[in-house]
Amino acid sequence: MSTFTSSVFRTETMTVPGGTETILRGGQDLFPLLPEALHGARRIGVLGWGPQGRAQALNLRDSLAGTDVTVSVGLRPGSSSAEDARKHGFTEENGTLGDWLAVAADSDLLILLIADAALAANHEKIFAVLKPGATIGLSHGFLLGHLKATGGDFPAGHPVIAVCPKGMGDSVRRLYEQGATVNGAGINASIAVHADPDGHATDRALAWSVGLGSPYTFLTTLENEYKSDIVGERAILLGAVHGLVEALYRHFRIEGADPVSAYERSTEAITGPIARTISDAGLPAVRAALSEADQDVFDRAYTAAYGPARELVAEIYDEVADGTELRSVILAEGRLATRPMTKIGGSPMWLHAAEVHARRGTATIAIDPLTAGLFVATMVAQVDEFADRGHPWSEIVNESIIEAVDSLLPYMHARDVAYMVDNCSRTARLGTRRWGPRFQAAYEQIAIPGLTDPADTTLLKSFLDNPTHAALAEAAKLRPSVDISVS
Amino acid sequence: MSTFTSSVFRTETMTVPGGTETILRGGQDLFPLLPEALHGARRIGVLGWGPQGRAQALNLRDSLAGTDVTVSVGLRPGSSSAEDARKHGFTEENGTLGDWLAVAADSDLLILLIADAALAANHEKIFAVLKPGATIGLSHGFLLGHLKATGGDFPAGHPVIAVCPKGMGDSVRRLYEQGATVNGAGINASIAVHADPDGHATDRALAWSVGLGSPYTFLTTLENEYKSDIVGERAILLGAVHGLVEALYRHFRIEGADPVSAYERSTEAITGPIARTISDAGLPAVRAALSEADQDVFDRAYTAAYGPARELVAEIYDEVADGTELRSVILAEGRLATRPMTKIGGSPMWLHAAEVHARRGTATIAIDPLTAGLFVATMVAQVDEFADRGHPWSEIVNESIIEAVDSLLPYMHARDVAYMVDNCSRTARLGTRRWGPRFQAAYEQIAIPGLTDPADTTLLKSFLDNPTHAALAEAAKLRPSVDISVS
Repeated sequence: MSTFTSSVFRTETMTVPGGTETILRGGQDLFPLLPEALHGARRIGVLGWGPQGRAQALNLRDSLAGTDVTVSVGLRPGSSSAEDARKHGFTEENGTLGDWLAVAADSDLLILLIADAALAANHEKIFAVLKPGATIGLSHGFLLGHLKATGGDFPAGHPVIAVCPKGMGDSVRRLYEQGATVNGAGINASIAVHADPDGHATDRALAWSVGLGSPYTFLTTLENEYKSDIVGERAILLGAVHGLVEALYRHFRIEGADPVSAYERSTEAITGPIARTISDAGLPAVRAALSEADQDVFDRAYTAAYGPARELVAEIYDEVADGTELRSVILAEGRLATRPMTKIGGSPMWLHAAEVHARRGTATIAIDPLTAGLFVATMVAQVDEFADRGHPWSEIVNESIIEAVDSLLPYMHARDVAYMVDNCSRTARLGTRRWGPRFQAAYEQIAIPGLTDPADTTLLKSFLDNPTHAALAEAAKLRPSVDISVS
Repeated sequence: MSTFTSSVFRTETMTVPGGTETILRGGQDLFPLLPEALHGARRIGVLGWGPQGRAQALNLRDSLAGTDVTVSVGLRPGSSSAEDARKHGFTEENGTLGDWLAVAADSDLLILLIADAALAANHEKIFAVLKPGATIGLSHGFLLGHLKATGGDFPAGHPVIAVCPKGMGDSVRRLYEQGATVNGAGINASIAVHADPDGHATDRALAWSVGLGSPYTFLTTLENEYKSDIVGERAILLGAVHGLVEALYRHFRIEGADPVSAYERSTEAITGPIARTISDAGLPAVRAALSEADQDVFDRAYTAAYGPARELVAEIYDEVADGTELRSVILAEGRLATRPMTKIGGSPMWLHAAEVHARRGTATIAIDPLTAGLFVATMVAQVDEFADRGHPWSEIVNESIIEAVDSLLPYMHARDVAYMVDNCSRTARLGTRRWGPRFQAAYEQIAIPGLTDPADTTLLKSFLDNPTHAALAEAAKLRPSVDISVS
């Protein structure tokens, strides 16, 4: 599953627990190979100008500058994004901005980056206008899930590929720009080849991924991508983080902490020092950074949280794999047609975000051992569940750890957690609202009351010996040398 | 939908908003009519000895004492319930206790009260041994939902009826015993006639309901029963209550209340004075009992909670109607096969239950206006959603109000809310764990932060003018004159 060959790029073999995976290391030096690797695709169309659409259109255009490959953006009539696209140089005048169906009809590689609900509603219309043999490109597996749930399918005769950056659109663009002077930087991406009628689908996907600036590209299936992506955002990437900080903030407040301290010990500790420590040195480094007394708290917190967190990740996984989760999204879209989604940013903690952010120059944020134990246990629970369900290790570490500490948590650090939830994709927002409170309840009702129990040394040993640490260290070797930050 | 006729019982017409519904008033004076109304069913078999199985078998045996109709209990081989059934007089020696399939094969009316999961796994085995023309009896619509989800059906040629007491099994028995001296008492029940090949299904259902002691019986469909039952337990009957008291307890604690006060202002206020006030005098009486200043708090709380609560009830309703909720239960049963369900009773509030209960003789519990506003808004949200979805008014007031204030909240008052959740049916436990935290988050993130907004006078007026108050008052006329309490 995680082995592939390319007729254009020189792939490498990465050692992962229990074996190896083929990967492709990215870099600006590969940009001259992109036209060849696209195997005849000369017109790339990007539908949509959300964060991913904008980032991918801009990165591809920059990477393909000076070649005969063009990148165009297609928008729905009256789209409010048109002005911003023009500001970024995609204009009707130069022929790189047009009606979405016109762009779809004109593309050799059509990248579908419109919102999930729009894709669900309009994919047939889009498929109907495609050039014969044009490649269909996706950046996550939602459409596959939708087609399965509704009995549909991709049109025959078209290559169907996915390139899925393991980070937010904003990060995809920002790191690419930051890396311009150091032979590239970006967000790791998985590729999937779902249909390959002309035998060149893998190379096209690799070209697209390299063009986005992915430091390394690994192979998965659209099915596995879909499951890990949707589960991940409902668990450690977003839902679990939100549930955890809501539980911790209230816990610290009830224990007597003032609002700013409670915020700093929960949200600020996670999005700041815990995320940075994991990014720099891996998961066990979080525990190692603590005093002996704090390690005991960490160990008991880890012990108390691992079980309920694992149970919730398994529940989410079952519901995503079964299609239940997607049915719930479709039902929600029906209700949301007549009333807007409420926001979750009203809960009291977020009133203190500005004050906490203002203290950043002067206050030193320690790693709270309770916060760290609960967070790391949840992250490892997701890793272990994904490993048990047979995902490739590159996907596991990217979807459970790297995307969190290098893309989402830094973004939450710059804004706040609730802001991020209220402003991400509808599928992710709905999922976070659905599962965040479940994590909160699990921490409040099971994990935190369980802190008085002794640490489980077997569980702690299996944390310290977890194969994910080696897989993460391998992946870290491919990291670009740019600073990951949010402006 | 809510009109029926009987060839044996004298039905009545109840005035409800927008029209009338046929109902049957119960009472011990009707017991002599039961054999006739059973139309040839002489052997009643009850499968299962959970709270409903025990209560129904005992009540039916008592009501049919001295007639030629027998009531037998069927249990799975090795069932741990056999000893308790024998203690209650159902024995192998007197021919009223046997293997479940033997009892199934021998019954003219077979009442299926085994657990949902057991019913899902074994209904085909049971259907295969039925006597020709034997009546299949259910006490809620779960099996219909399961059959729809799995493409199955009830066997042809058999009457299929349901009698669904709107209260816990414990209440069904306790009130029946308490009412022995006052011409009967019990829990209201809905009936549904799903298949009626011999034309006597309605009378049999009425006989069963009267035999249970139902003060009044109303008609619904198995489909509507299923939806209102499953939605109700996930919302105001259980899930919303749990989420609400978790949110309120933490809110009061953070505001400075000690644990006992926080418990009394949240859980104790709801299960005590709020439930009693609604039971005695209806929903507006809760507001009327408050001082003017407290009414303002109530109004703002009601305003802030109604919208998010209604949204959640609608979401639950959609998922139950769609089958998504049932798929989730089936998936959970798969995971629970290898690991036990965790308990939710560990959260800090419940440590103080004993202390609060011990104060009952001396402390006077006031109606906290915030608690009351949030609770009543949620109850009305469920009422309004059920009304919009076309449920009969008897079902609406029983499933949203009467069952809560006369059965479940008194039980929670005697134990505590988490104890009740951890000890109810698996379907209800799973649902509460799934939706309780969603309500908690809605109160914490939306309703409580919204308390600073002014009250919505239009919304308040539509509360005070809500047609449910008239429907509830009509239903209250049929209430037995026994005290509702939990030993």
